[in-house]
Amino acid sequence: MKVDGKHYRSIWLGSDGWSVCAIDQRRLPHEFVVAKITTCEEAADAIRGMLVRGAPLIGATAAFGMALGMRDDRSDPGIDRAYEMLIATRPTAINLKWALDTMSTMLRRLAPSERRDAAYARAVDIAGEDVTINRGIASHGLALIEAAAARKKPGEAVNVLTHCNAGWLATVDWGTATAPIYLAHDSGIPIHVWVDETRPRNQGASLTAWELGHHGVAHTVIPDNTGGHLMQHGMVDLAIVGTDRVAANGDVCNKIGTYLKALAAHDNGVPFYVALPSPTIDFAVAEGRQIPIEQRSAQEVTEMTGRTSDGRIETVRIVPPGSPVANYGFDVTPARLVTGLITERGVLQADGAALAAAFPERARPTNY
Amino acid sequence: MKVDGKHYRSIWLGSDGWSVCAIDQRRLPHEFVVAKITTCEEAADAIRGMLVRGAPLIGATAAFGMALGMRDDRSDPGIDRAYEMLIATRPTAINLKWALDTMSTMLRRLAPSERRDAAYARAVDIAGEDVTINRGIASHGLALIEAAAARKKPGEAVNVLTHCNAGWLATVDWGTATAPIYLAHDSGIPIHVWVDETRPRNQGASLTAWELGHHGVAHTVIPDNTGGHLMQHGMVDLAIVGTDRVAANGDVCNKIGTYLKALAAHDNGVPFYVALPSPTIDFAVAEGRQIPIEQRSAQEVTEMTGRTSDGRIETVRIVPPGSPVANYGFDVTPARLVTGLITERGVLQADGAALAAAFPERARPTNY
Repeated sequence: MKVDGKHYRSIWLGSDGWSVCAIDQRRLPHEFVVAKITTCEEAADAIRGMLVRGAPLIGATAAFGMALGMRDDRSDPGIDRAYEMLIATRPTAINLKWALDTMSTMLRRLAPSERRDAAYARAVDIAGEDVTINRGIASHGLALIEAAAARKKPGEAVNVLTHCNAGWLATVDWGTATAPIYLAHDSGIPIHVWVDETRPRNQGASLTAWELGHHGVAHTVIPDNTGGHLMQHGMVDLAIVGTDRVAANGDVCNKIGTYLKALAAHDNGVPFYVALPSPTIDFAVAEGRQIPIEQRSAQEVTEMTGRTSDGRIETVRIVPPGSPVANYGFDVTPARLVTGLITERGVLQADGAALAAAFPERARPTNY
Repeated sequence: MKVDGKHYRSIWLGSDGWSVCAIDQRRLPHEFVVAKITTCEEAADAIRGMLVRGAPLIGATAAFGMALGMRDDRSDPGIDRAYEMLIATRPTAINLKWALDTMSTMLRRLAPSERRDAAYARAVDIAGEDVTINRGIASHGLALIEAAAARKKPGEAVNVLTHCNAGWLATVDWGTATAPIYLAHDSGIPIHVWVDETRPRNQGASLTAWELGHHGVAHTVIPDNTGGHLMQHGMVDLAIVGTDRVAANGDVCNKIGTYLKALAAHDNGVPFYVALPSPTIDFAVAEGRQIPIEQRSAQEVTEMTGRTSDGRIETVRIVPPGSPVANYGFDVTPARLVTGLITERGVLQADGAALAAAFPERARPTNY
């Protein structure tokens, strides 16, 4: 989408034809910096350190990481090393495994001499496929926003609540949860987004607000505690969130706190949608509770980074010294709380049968 | 309770016999500073600026503010001026109105010459009554914790989740939600508290963690997004929160985000208790949705204050410039989600009949 009028993707092949460029998301919203990734190790570091984040973008970055790895070592053990290095970075996002499996299966079938160029071509394809998928999500989700707009007075904005960043920064472009929002905005539908701050890493305040603002979409940042109150008072027409992994039964694993918003939506009759590219569906996992939940460092909770009034970037500690901290990265929203799954193949019921019917080539018949 | 082994209250009469001392809660957990309040204006500023906060402590501070006002002007208009100045500070906490009504009714009946000394005596009484009430809450709540402990293996801690600061810092001593926790801890029951950070002002991370840590109670700070996940995984035995105002029907107005935790507790069969001194019950308000919800400044959301690694206190901006912010201070948890109200007269069902039966001298018969 646009940054100050210029179109960007979150990751792209450098103009030298081999290095990989990515927006350094650790430095947003305070600084807009493009990082250059030149080795498989740097790609792994970028994922682990959250220079890039968001399930689809993690997948694309891993694919480019495999391509960079093939520059150094095109042997079978080289494929294994690159795979192991990249798979170890983040345990929850299924797209990481999907991208790495796709890349390594393809590479293993080729002669080593062909692997480098094939890896780059496939990585570029994976990035492009993500954009195509998200454009599909945008179209299907647009109908939901149009339906909400039809219930409003003329000119009155549709209020969408979102959690974390399932925006274009979390994907290659368009985003997942934001894809219908951008398309609605670009189509001239008045829309306003309630942006959950999303502690502890503040991806909502730092990234979603930043990207919506730079594209020109009306939005308001709220503490994560606020959504229930807004829903009680009719101030949310629908919620749309992303997901890191959907189980075969439709349970949704997403950023910690998503479950609480789904409960509030259910309690107040607010439709609660999850937008996802199909690689995010893990047909090998029967139920959400089987998904491993990443625990991240205490530092993400105890410290906060921002800009001082005189322009310096500072990190401050906000928890008393000696107070322990827990930092669970994700939670699971049971399928019963999900109104629908917005995929590139349409808006599906969050249940195993609907998922299997929409994606028969990937579903495991034994699950049903 | 104790700070590094020494017993403190949150507010007390200065050793000069007229000024009022209070712990400056804006500076916790980074600095422990006692502020001296010498006029009614300063008392109002202390409440508005959240040097003191927490419904019961706001009431006590307002009472002392009236006493300070009587030093300057003991006339009837002087009572009115002090009342108006103090009532305008915070709209949601009912204890503020209760304390001011109590003080002004009493003062009006006296000759001006008697008003100063009587105001001080009543303010000291109000503070003392708060401690007595909270000690009562502690006893009644202890039984709930003991019951949870009886279901644990020997030595295994009872896990209590709390939101915001309904600790001794929010009252004169003991706290409301924390009163049973401190009593259980002091009685040797193994207890561990999940402390919601409580954005945007971080009263959980800044105040609850600080006071629990200084008293020696095991605790873990968590982002507000985390509680639902913990409850899904059996890691919370009971939730206890405070409240700023309880409606006659048992609806609970408390710090924004409380409703979301009550929903999660309900969804997972976790008992959800609200601890409150009876002055917090507003029998004049039939339902929670009639309680005015304070909207506070955007700055509380956009900025965060903490200590840098080299010891400086800095304030940093964490929301992109130009992104609007909403800051609702409170939400309402419907009585149907509340397992029980822990009061100084016992643990009550959250409904109008139970409240009226327990506090017949205050209930309005027309409500039932």
